[in-house]
Amino acid sequence: MPVIKKIINNPNNCAAELLDGLVEAYDGSCIKVGRGCIVKKDIPAGKVALLVGGGSGHEPIYHGLVGHNLADGAACGDIFAAPPPDIVLEGAQAVNRGKGVLFLYGNYAGDVLNFDMGAELAAEEGIEVKTVLITDDLASAPPDRKGDRRGIAGLVPIVKLAGAAAATVDSLDELARIATKANDMTRSVGVSMSPGSIPATGHPTFEIDDDKIGLGMGIHGEKGVGLIPMTTADDLVPQLLDLLFKDDLAFNQGDEVVLLVNSLGSTTMMELLIVNRTVKKILADRGLHVHDTIIGPLVTCQEMSGFSISLTKLDPELKRLWDLSCESVCYTKLGNEP
Amino acid sequence: MPVIKKIINNPNNCAAELLDGLVEAYDGSCIKVGRGCIVKKDIPAGKVALLVGGGSGHEPIYHGLVGHNLADGAACGDIFAAPPPDIVLEGAQAVNRGKGVLFLYGNYAGDVLNFDMGAELAAEEGIEVKTVLITDDLASAPPDRKGDRRGIAGLVPIVKLAGAAAATVDSLDELARIATKANDMTRSVGVSMSPGSIPATGHPTFEIDDDKIGLGMGIHGEKGVGLIPMTTADDLVPQLLDLLFKDDLAFNQGDEVVLLVNSLGSTTMMELLIVNRTVKKILADRGLHVHDTIIGPLVTCQEMSGFSISLTKLDPELKRLWDLSCESVCYTKLGNEP
Repeated sequence: MPVIKKIINNPNNCAAELLDGLVEAYDGSCIKVGRGCIVKKDIPAGKVALLVGGGSGHEPIYHGLVGHNLADGAACGDIFAAPPPDIVLEGAQAVNRGKGVLFLYGNYAGDVLNFDMGAELAAEEGIEVKTVLITDDLASAPPDRKGDRRGIAGLVPIVKLAGAAAATVDSLDELARIATKANDMTRSVGVSMSPGSIPATGHPTFEIDDDKIGLGMGIHGEKGVGLIPMTTADDLVPQLLDLLFKDDLAFNQGDEVVLLVNSLGSTTMMELLIVNRTVKKILADRGLHVHDTIIGPLVTCQEMSGFSISLTKLDPELKRLWDLSCESVCYTKLGNEP
Repeated sequence: MPVIKKIINNPNNCAAELLDGLVEAYDGSCIKVGRGCIVKKDIPAGKVALLVGGGSGHEPIYHGLVGHNLADGAACGDIFAAPPPDIVLEGAQAVNRGKGVLFLYGNYAGDVLNFDMGAELAAEEGIEVKTVLITDDLASAPPDRKGDRRGIAGLVPIVKLAGAAAATVDSLDELARIATKANDMTRSVGVSMSPGSIPATGHPTFEIDDDKIGLGMGIHGEKGVGLIPMTTADDLVPQLLDLLFKDDLAFNQGDEVVLLVNSLGSTTMMELLIVNRTVKKILADRGLHVHDTIIGPLVTCQEMSGFSISLTKLDPELKRLWDLSCESVCYTKLGNEP
């Protein structure tokens, strides 16, 4: 095993310390609440609130998606662990402005269990909560079991759209409707070439042969479609897009999409750009119009290598929301104000 | 040696293909010019132009800093190689709007040689060129030989400020004055823990023992202050800031600064945030006010691990320029328009 040299302190304090550092990165626009939440400082009275969250160790998400026209807060767990219910409750309390809170997070069993318990605790305090699960990873279950799919990098455009909606809607039902649509209109497929390591143990999150790529592998190394031989960008990208276009969401000539090419960690921006070159040729050949491209290491798993391609299909409502500005540590975009 | 699994095509075509993918990532706001330049599509008549550039392989810089209120174009070399003079000339021709072109790039011998030859070729065509070299890496030469220093991650705030200036000034002299000031007001210091690899050979860019950190090591593994034992964030960060505060640029109580915490590649955002937590405590103790924090893998060297800390001291003119919006693949910020 190669030695992984991480610049940290006590490996068991990583989640707490990175949260402190994240709050500091916002230069005063966000505060820490309780022991595991980051929350916007200036949430206006009467705003419908958006709370995201999940395990730490995947920075800059989720907690880096708190910001202007994005999430109002994030409930953060330990490294690769869901936030416990009391942290979820603290997050809901901190963002609630009387109009209710949407919980929006990736579909992992631990997260669902803990956020649901947090929602019950919030309900006991009179806070209305609705939940939308992010299920963009098409390799994690077939279309007839879409509800079982995991959330991976597609969470970035989904949270961006939900955050824009939360800045404009009057009701929690309306926010839940739009977040559900954003999730329904998003598909992702990814590959992994090598694992990240768990900071507290130094152990890799999975094992994979030197000459293999995990097709459809999840962001923690979860099994996907299967192993394929190591190959080139021009050979691999069409295989990924084939899976995406064979799925149940139709991408037709003339459709407008947002494209996200995400690195899982140590896959370089050079590689992402080479991948993007191939992706764009195939999308152009299909007559798809890319309205906006996001590219970078946004949904990571430590120094894991691999990448994913996500497409979000825009209708007029989603396009209007996409075109709003947003600002956060994870993703910033110039655009319109609501 | 661990096997590095890169998703590329012909390793000798990486620079050309990533440039194509970068142009595509701009979704129509930039075009490719000649075989090695990326240029903004909408440069207004009469604008003083800013051209950046350097070797590829460090993505998302330099070429990712072309954009709104940023650079007008970039001249891109092969992986870790300066752009040849004809590419520099093509870049100058493409961005020139009759008011001259500032060349702004990191101080490396190959870049200086090639950009200077490009400037001569441009002069023969009647294009006025001035050059400002980026020399923020304090570990690469002592203060009395500041002109010998290399450019590292500080180039991001420096290009940001110069880009904002280029959007507002009337003359090339004025742009050169402000870019020089931005460079004079910026200091960076970095560490490396493990090398990146050269795509065409798979060979590491340098070697370092498993229990050592290269203090002040350059972004290609150039020698810096020396080797120190592997250590924690809380032990390492004060050593780096000590070097920064012992340098010739005074950071006094009440000064406003921009802080950049940059990853060289596979150092995770988790680590950068833990480092940021420690940095902010020390800056607060010194009475420095951080006006804005940038954090992420912006100046990289493939999958190299390591990070750097850069401080840019703001005076009223630089602060006004900092507060302008900007948008690019590398760095985006909400703000004012000129």
